Formats: sequence, structure tokens, C-alpha cells
Amino acid sequence: MEGNQVFLLPGPTPLPQRVIRAMAVPIIQHRGPEFKELLWEVTDGIKEIYQTNNDLLILTASGTGGMEAAVANFLSNGDKALVISVGAFGERFKKICSTFGVVYDSLDFEWGRAADPELVSEKLREDKNHKIKAVLCQHSETSTGVLNDIEKISRACQDHPALLIVDAISGLGAADLKTDAWNLDVVISGSQKSFMVPPGLATISVSGRAWEAAQKCNNKCYYFNLKQAKNFFEQGQTPFTPAVSVFLGLRESLKMMREEGLPAVINRHYRYRDMVRAGIRAMGLEPLVDESVASPALTSVKAPPGVKPQVIRQKLLAEHNVVVAGGQGKLADSIFRIGHLGFIQPGDIFSGLASLELVIRDLGVELEMGSSVKAAQEVYCKGAGD
Amino acid sequence: MEGNQVFLLPGPTPLPQRVIRAMAVPIIQHRGPEFKELLWEVTDGIKEIYQTNNDLLILTASGTGGMEAAVANFLSNGDKALVISVGAFGERFKKICSTFGVVYDSLDFEWGRAADPELVSEKLREDKNHKIKAVLCQHSETSTGVLNDIEKISRACQDHPALLIVDAISGLGAADLKTDAWNLDVVISGSQKSFMVPPGLATISVSGRAWEAAQKCNNKCYYFNLKQAKNFFEQGQTPFTPAVSVFLGLRESLKMMREEGLPAVINRHYRYRDMVRAGIRAMGLEPLVDESVASPALTSVKAPPGVKPQVIRQKLLAEHNVVVAGGQGKLADSIFRIGHLGFIQPGDIFSGLASLELVIRDLGVELEMGSSVKAAQEVYCKGAGD
Repeated sequence: MEGNQVFLLPGPTPLPQRVIRAMAVPIIQHRGPEFKELLWEVTDGIKEIYQTNNDLLILTASGTGGMEAAVANFLSNGDKALVISVGAFGERFKKICSTFGVVYDSLDFEWGRAADPELVSEKLREDKNHKIKAVLCQHSETSTGVLNDIEKISRACQDHPALLIVDAISGLGAADLKTDAWNLDVVISGSQKSFMVPPGLATISVSGRAWEAAQKCNNKCYYFNLKQAKNFFEQGQTPFTPAVSVFLGLRESLKMMREEGLPAVINRHYRYRDMVRAGIRAMGLEPLVDESVASPALTSVKAPPGVKPQVIRQKLLAEHNVVVAGGQGKLADSIFRIGHLGFIQPGDIFSGLASLELVIRDLGVELEMGSSVKAAQEVYCKGAGD
Repeated sequence: MEGNQVFLLPGPTPLPQRVIRAMAVPIIQHRGPEFKELLWEVTDGIKEIYQTNNDLLILTASGTGGMEAAVANFLSNGDKALVISVGAFGERFKKICSTFGVVYDSLDFEWGRAADPELVSEKLREDKNHKIKAVLCQHSETSTGVLNDIEKISRACQDHPALLIVDAISGLGAADLKTDAWNLDVVISGSQKSFMVPPGLATISVSGRAWEAAQKCNNKCYYFNLKQAKNFFEQGQTPFTPAVSVFLGLRESLKMMREEGLPAVINRHYRYRDMVRAGIRAMGLEPLVDESVASPALTSVKAPPGVKPQVIRQKLLAEHNVVVAGGQGKLADSIFRIGHLGFIQPGDIFSGLASLELVIRDLGVELEMGSSVKAAQEVYCKGAGD
């Protein structure tokens, strides 16, 4: 279908014109004074969003490359870890642990529910000999749209020496995440999320405690070696040729985030979440996730009885140019996911909801046209969280 | 310094306006019909440059990520390999082998010289029990500007079952490389080289024999798992979020390469090489590498006696906006490198040579101004290789 898409994904997110223009320039050298300045400026900007003074390294890779770096640099073959899993990305952490010989105990929660910090506490109290070297979990679990309470999980870890490794790929910049105040040792994110630039860069923060663990780590890595990345960073370089154009986009998008201010950026994501949830309910659909743990990055929606979510997505794309995400893993046949992450406008949400109404009405669901947009408008006028 | 740079690097290379425009568009979804078509079209285009019908996979990473994938997927911990090293990237293969527990025997040649295929033959003949599982080497060694004779190296391997793994990151598309006709099992390249797009993607071709080796491989990889990449490719996807904007650039640059025709693309690189070499000599400087093995991707130039190559580079950038690369490793203090790779124009070479004349004259080298440009013009008029 010709024309602009309404792009409602939990990443990649739409690109601001300012970012597109910032990237549409001649290439720059990655071992020269301009890149040095760019690398340092972008790193400082990302650290503001991370709310950290820890080291922050940028890898040319998808977010998953950052997850691999977080396991391979800080956990040894034979080490024990506790993986908290609330969805497909929790399962991904398990697979990466297995790849690197890390023996994991897992705390699995039903997909669509958040992790219970009390159970984390319990697991760690049981580990009297401190065999568990790291706790791994998601901030926003992108496969379900659940936001874990990282502050409470961190508190549950406080009397145990395990590192806390957080995949904040879709959550950072959408929900609050205080890397330093909450003592988060390793936090991973990606360029195509709240940062509003194309995919290609993963970011990872590293605490002093995590660097100490890295010293003792017997897992070897080359491309994702973070110590080497830190050494090069200090010279204003990356060990290997970086995705320069994404850096150029990031410099601009970080300016935009600074102009808006982090609290306002986060508030915007919550407002959009509430608009989408209100709209969904008004057309008689049900969000997968309870309000209290709903991620501001995306909303999973249960398909109406007898309707395949794949058909909804296909019709949205083919008939209305609206892009939403499918369910993953065991939820593939029961949900679809509406992203409200990054450079989304209220108009995208109105348009997406109106189109969704038409699609499910066409599939036999009874509803009052316009009701979902009205509900979203009402939230828009009230502001978020009221 | 304001104004356009004259960009003479062995990657990243300048971006054509067509590529910049192709990338300056709204983002697309990576799990949808548009990306599927994009992935398959780009893969087919890259396979033409590789001259292969083998599987071709695209990873979101620097070229070094492709080198890591080439070792980790096809060689087991404890396997023996033969690493042919003619420079810094040969040394990089050794480090990656060490990381993955691959025991390597090495054939080291003086930096600035090419590998001797006869010695490769000899090494393999000595390995009567076929302990060597793979031979690793560079096509164009980017640290020196040497082009290895991959066809002859391949012939040296033909009576031995070892896989032949070739790093063609800077060489592919600049010098001829017949992946299938020369029986090359694994060939690596990168987006920011002759493909004329920004860094962010590594490409890797895999022969049937290499896939068989992968079945038996005990090294585990997650992010760079090529079997998983192949499975996703068949569905028109990548396992992890790809650097979508670089793909969009590649679609356009591959069209440009097809319009020009691969023989003409390669001929252009040789012509530029000859222009640069003639110009260098005309101003009294000496290329590091003998004509017979000089890479068409870049030319290493020995700094004149008593002059630091770093000073030449700094002055070129500060006074003339000309970007060239420094020497690497043990050559850092004796050479600089002029790239003539990718989207370079003859005018860039004239401008670069004229600026270089002014810089070294300023540093006390006697020369006749204009002589190097004249020499390059003469080569330009004659065509390459005459």
C-alpha cells in the first residue's frame, strides 16, 4: 500500500525528520577527531537516560548482542545464575546462558504477569553459599508488554553479592530506570527503541562490581569484549568499525530528548500507554497485562474470540497501512502488540485505533464506531496516570 | 575545517547521493513483507558480487563480527587451523582462533608482502593426517594494502580437506574474487567497503562443505549463530533486529554496481590504484607494496625519511580536509594509507595528491609541484593495467 505507514511497533520506532536529516550526510572517519567527539557526546547523552555514572559502551549489534555481552563478559563457564523469566526475552537470556556454559536456576512467571520480587528474595536467601553470581531479568518484557519492578527486584538482591543484569532494551527511556540509585550492575538497551534512531547499536552500562567480575571471568569473547571496548573508548574510538550513521542519528535524537527532558519523555510514554489501553477496552478488546504492571513501551492485546491475531495484523497493514507487531512464542496465536514507543504522535494512536475498530468490525466484532478514539482522546485531555 | 572532505580511506568509503537518499526515509518493519523482499533482493545482489550460489548471510555487526562468525561456527575448540598472516588482520584471525580454543599453526609473511601459495602447499602436504581443519587468510590485507592470490592459495588447498576461509572485507568488489569457481568455503565482507554504504552489516558466504563442518562444531555461538541466521533467512527475516537503514542503502548501491557491471567496478578500482601509485612515485614517495601484489582497495605509502606519517595525516586533515588512514600495529610510525575503495572519483585522487604534495613540501621534501597529478592524469587517460 502506498502512503505513509502508521508505525506502532515496540521497535524499531518511527524516525523524527531531524534524525533522518542528521543521518543523511557524508560519512565520517571512525578513527579521527570528529568521531571521537561524536562518540563521547553520544555516550554522555545516553548516560543521562540511563541515569548513571557507570561506564557506558556502545556496540555495533542488535540489542541481543548486548545481552550476549552481558552474559559472556561477567559470567564464567560453570557459574550459576538466576534467570527471572516473564516472556520470550527471559527465555532468550536462558539460551545465552546455556551457550556460555552458565548454569541457571529460573524463576518463571506466567507470560503476561510481572516477576514477584518476594520470590526473588526467597531464592537468594536460600542461596546461603552465594553460588548465584548474577540475577538476570527484563525491565520491559517486549514479548508481553509487562514492566517488571526493577527497583524492588534490586532491593531483593541487596543482601546478596550477585550482580544484577537488566535487559532494558525496550524499557529504557519509556519507563523510569535509575541505574545508579537502584544499584543496577549491567543494563542493556538498543538504538531503535526510545532513542528513536534505526537499529544497529546496542548500549551497555557496567558498574565497578561488574568490572571486578569481568576480571575473573573465564568466558572468552572477541567481538563483544567489553574491556577492549572500554580501552578504545578512552581513546575516543571503538575496537571495530562502528555503525557511524546511527551515531549521527543518536546525537540528534539525544538532543531532542534533552530538550523535552527525561521526566516528560517518560510521562509521554505513560500517556500513550493509557490512551491505547482505554481505546482497546472501549472497543471491547482486552489488554493481556494488568494495568499495575503494564509497560509504557507497548500494549499486548488479546484477539477477540474466534479471530486470529495474524488476520487482524494483515488487514491493518493491507487496508489501513497500520503496522503492529505479532505475538511471540506461545502467544503467537492469541495476541497482537501495539507499540507506543519512541517517536509516536497522538495522531498515530487515534489513527491506529480507528483502523483497528474498522478491521475487527469487519471480522464480526460488534462495536460502536469512534468509541475507542473518544476514550483515547479523553485520556489525552486528562494526562497520564490520573 | 568546514567544507566537504576528500575521503580516501579503505572503508568506510564515501556515500553516493543515491545511497544517502535511499536511506533518508521512514523506517520499515523488520518482520513484515517489505523487509522480506528487501532482505532477499539485497542478498541476491551481494551474491552476484561474491560470484556465488552458496548461502549468503548478513549479520548486524562490523566486519570483525563476520570474522568471529567464520571461526566460531566452523571450527571446534581443540581443532587445528592454519592462519596465513600478512598483516594486522591476519593477526586478528589468530586472536579470534585463540578466543575459541582453535590451535593455529601460522604462516607469517613480512608486512607488505603477499602470502606465498607454495609455502601453503608445503604446510598442507606435511599435514598427512589432515589435522588442519581450516586455512584462514585475507584477500586484501587492509593494514598493508597487499592482495593475496586467493586463486593460487585455493589451488594449494585442493588436495586437502581443510576449509578455506577468506576475509575479503576490503577486497571484495575491488579485486576479483570467484567464490564458487575458486572453491572458497567461507568468505566475509562488510557493508562499508566496495558496497558504498555505511558500516553496520557484515556478510558471510557458506559452502555446503562448511555447513557440514558446522554440524560437528562444538563451539557455541548465539548472536553469530549462522544456522539460526539461515533458518530465519528462509522466512525472509533475521534472528535479531537488523540494521534496516543500511539494508535500504545496500539495495540502492547494489543497483549502482549492477548498472556499472562487476568487471567495470573492479577495473575502476585498479585504475584508481594505478593513478595513486603513479602519483605517489612522481612526488618521490614510495609505496610499501610491490606492484605485482598491490591491492586495488588501498595503497600504503612510506613516509619520507625523518617525517612522521601522523604529521602528514594531521596536516592533510587540518589544512586540506583530506582524510587518509594511518598505519596499524608495527607500521604505525612508518606508513600512511590512501584508500581508493568504493565511491571514489578521479577528482578525489587529483585533489588528494595535490594536497599531499603541498603537505610534504611544507615538511621539507623537495618536489616539482603538479608532477604527481600529471602522473595520475596520464594513468587515467591510458586506463588501468596498461
